[in-house]
Amino acid sequence: MSDLERVLARIDVDLDRSLDRLFEFLRIKSISTDPAYKDDCRAAAGHLAGELQSVGFAAELRPTAGHPVVLGKTNGADNGGGRRVLFYGHYDVQPVDPLDLWKTPPFEPRIATLPDGRKAITARGAADDKGQVMTFVEACRAWKAVTGALPLDVTMLVEGEEECGSKNLPPFVAAAKDELKAEVALVCDTSMWDPKTPAITTALRGLVYDEVWIKAADRDLHSGLFGGAAQNPIRVLTKILGSIHDDNGRITIPGFYDGIRELPPDVKAQWAALELTPQSFLGPIGLSVPAGEKDRSLIEQLSSRPTCDINGIWGGYTGEGSKTVIPAQAAAKISFRLVSGQDPEKIRAAFRAFVRARLPADCRAEFVDHTLAPALALDWGMPQLGAARRALSDEWGKDALLIGSGASIPICADFKRLLGMDTLLIGFGLDDDRVHSPNEKYDLTSFHKGIRSWARILAALAA
Amino acid sequence: MSDLERVLARIDVDLDRSLDRLFEFLRIKSISTDPAYKDDCRAAAGHLAGELQSVGFAAELRPTAGHPVVLGKTNGADNGGGRRVLFYGHYDVQPVDPLDLWKTPPFEPRIATLPDGRKAITARGAADDKGQVMTFVEACRAWKAVTGALPLDVTMLVEGEEECGSKNLPPFVAAAKDELKAEVALVCDTSMWDPKTPAITTALRGLVYDEVWIKAADRDLHSGLFGGAAQNPIRVLTKILGSIHDDNGRITIPGFYDGIRELPPDVKAQWAALELTPQSFLGPIGLSVPAGEKDRSLIEQLSSRPTCDINGIWGGYTGEGSKTVIPAQAAAKISFRLVSGQDPEKIRAAFRAFVRARLPADCRAEFVDHTLAPALALDWGMPQLGAARRALSDEWGKDALLIGSGASIPICADFKRLLGMDTLLIGFGLDDDRVHSPNEKYDLTSFHKGIRSWARILAALAA
Repeated sequence: MSDLERVLARIDVDLDRSLDRLFEFLRIKSISTDPAYKDDCRAAAGHLAGELQSVGFAAELRPTAGHPVVLGKTNGADNGGGRRVLFYGHYDVQPVDPLDLWKTPPFEPRIATLPDGRKAITARGAADDKGQVMTFVEACRAWKAVTGALPLDVTMLVEGEEECGSKNLPPFVAAAKDELKAEVALVCDTSMWDPKTPAITTALRGLVYDEVWIKAADRDLHSGLFGGAAQNPIRVLTKILGSIHDDNGRITIPGFYDGIRELPPDVKAQWAALELTPQSFLGPIGLSVPAGEKDRSLIEQLSSRPTCDINGIWGGYTGEGSKTVIPAQAAAKISFRLVSGQDPEKIRAAFRAFVRARLPADCRAEFVDHTLAPALALDWGMPQLGAARRALSDEWGKDALLIGSGASIPICADFKRLLGMDTLLIGFGLDDDRVHSPNEKYDLTSFHKGIRSWARILAALAA
Repeated sequence: MSDLERVLARIDVDLDRSLDRLFEFLRIKSISTDPAYKDDCRAAAGHLAGELQSVGFAAELRPTAGHPVVLGKTNGADNGGGRRVLFYGHYDVQPVDPLDLWKTPPFEPRIATLPDGRKAITARGAADDKGQVMTFVEACRAWKAVTGALPLDVTMLVEGEEECGSKNLPPFVAAAKDELKAEVALVCDTSMWDPKTPAITTALRGLVYDEVWIKAADRDLHSGLFGGAAQNPIRVLTKILGSIHDDNGRITIPGFYDGIRELPPDVKAQWAALELTPQSFLGPIGLSVPAGEKDRSLIEQLSSRPTCDINGIWGGYTGEGSKTVIPAQAAAKISFRLVSGQDPEKIRAAFRAFVRARLPADCRAEFVDHTLAPALALDWGMPQLGAARRALSDEWGKDALLIGSGASIPICADFKRLLGMDTLLIGFGLDDDRVHSPNEKYDLTSFHKGIRSWARILAALAA
């Protein structure tokens, strides 16, 4: 029996205790965005540091301007080659409101049986990200228990502010640069293709998030007295935002598509074979027709093409009843998901120029910066990618798919920029996990086979 | 000395006491929209009924589903002809926030000196509408004091819900129809042309106020996972609202301009001579270029042409920072100012059809009714109009202008519809009165010469 086989066997027999440990972590109300849960966040960080210490990590809490970072390092893997990987995750969770939609209390984890018979761990953070983080920790635990060491050295970086913007993480990474160096980063915050098909996310969309304010008169006006003659900032804002997409769903901002390469024909063919249909993807949320560029398939709209969404808009009177006001200002929050080849700085500048070019007399635009992150695309020939892919395929009995994700994980760009390090995004989440929503869950299979997958990947990366 | 001359002289000597009485009325915090001031509204109604009784009216409070109506009637004018006019006003006032922008407390009336030397009564309600109402009451008081009776019978109808939609007034008028019958209605809620030029408003724009909700997916979505493929109701809403006006400021809703007549050339010439300039009208509010139909003059945009304003819009995330949400719905409040010839019902139906025709797949629109009021245009040959105009010209030493107002006073349409009665809109407000804003004021000259004007008009209408 090989070391790996003994490790996998150990994982199977230890599953109930692994679940106990996860449940203990899930009971801690580490809601990072709400200051009322500051102590809980610290407790979750301390709890995780203790878990890492029990697996042989030198682990400690590092202060930031917000919630602490958990930093753990092994030092003494017996592979002799000094190989090291960096694992990133987060111990904080989303708020739980609306609480009355939860079938069982969000911080009382339990195993539920889904309508189709699947078993799932139900709790806030079960999937995002405590369950995913613990698949990795439990894989390390099994290696340590069976062989006395991990197959290669591991640095754990687990933050407590992912759900509220991670704004203290890039400065932390920059300052702790030397301590964080590794061959590759592993991030476990993504999903499988479906419950039976593992996936590695090799492309992430970038993100430009901007806020625009349109201002006209120096005060709110009565529309009876001034209507018809005074500029209305809501009218100006809707006219500008309403012209960002043409009738074919294409974005009209000049230069927006500059630098984007078409998909290679073989990838396009692979994706076409996936048969992601509007019915399967949009049906469950009450929609039926893809809203993006009309000449692009659904999967392209979702992962290889850039998008623009208005995430918020407000202005004027929004209460009950009616008020005939022409407001002095109106505003919107707008985000662009970017793909490889697009320059976030240029996109932001192009958007702002687009707005300014459409301002009528007497109106001005003001902007507030939010996120700015480039898209990420892994080199498909990268050796660690091949190793991880084989390990996943061995575990699941099916080829692991290489997929693009519509989401943005800005820390991956920071790892590249600050540490010169690529990131493998491997996760065991599923589309129906209800992440950020009531009744979040994580399939028991995701947890169990996730641990086994990481045990294999650690061995494969050390080989 | 004629009766009228003696009445005018009496008004002059009694001015200080008239001001004392107005100040007492202004000290009552009759903010109708806020339930916390319910008792104050009742107190204001009671106070006004007392004032009317002191002038010889049989006056009482009449209950409604909201704040009471003050109804007062004289019965015994010695003109013998049984002539009667109905005066309409309101005793309620707008809220006072933001309170910190008031230079002196809003319910502690005082006389302030404006930068150009004009004296003004400063308080919430000074102009809108307590000051204007009291010009009429004090004119009646002077007639009563000097001659023992008014020149013709007067019915006073003063409501307490004008600032929160007057929704209980039309049913009250319908139910009290027989008690309210009169030759003509007088409404004192309008403005002069400028501080030296009196005006009668002979045209009011109508109003259609609608609320539209655009709904798509059955829940809020994460823009990283669904962006590009899922319909975004804010995008749909901005696209639709942004297409209501074309680049020339013209409204594109089919049939919107149906039924509108062009101004007669002589009226157009008279208006051109008024030299209302963008600088004089828009400059004080920080604007410079009229935003309406490009081929129409400013005064046409403001009074003889219909408009569309978006009065409020909301959807998605509107808090601090960023959230990558695609909301399930977005909404807006939209109003149309109508001119004579436009049918409010048809305009509302045309707007809704316009929205529905532009809905993409998977989106639906829902609407909430608000106000629906037709425009009003007086017959310029109406005898009472000529009489009132001559009285005003006598007082101010300048021809009274006949003007259109961009505002809507729905009760005038109700008087016509329910009582078959036309309305003369005569008021002494000025453009710089800061109605609905902090530091509301009413020129002392408006108050004093307003009382004198009504004394003359009562005589003229009785003649």
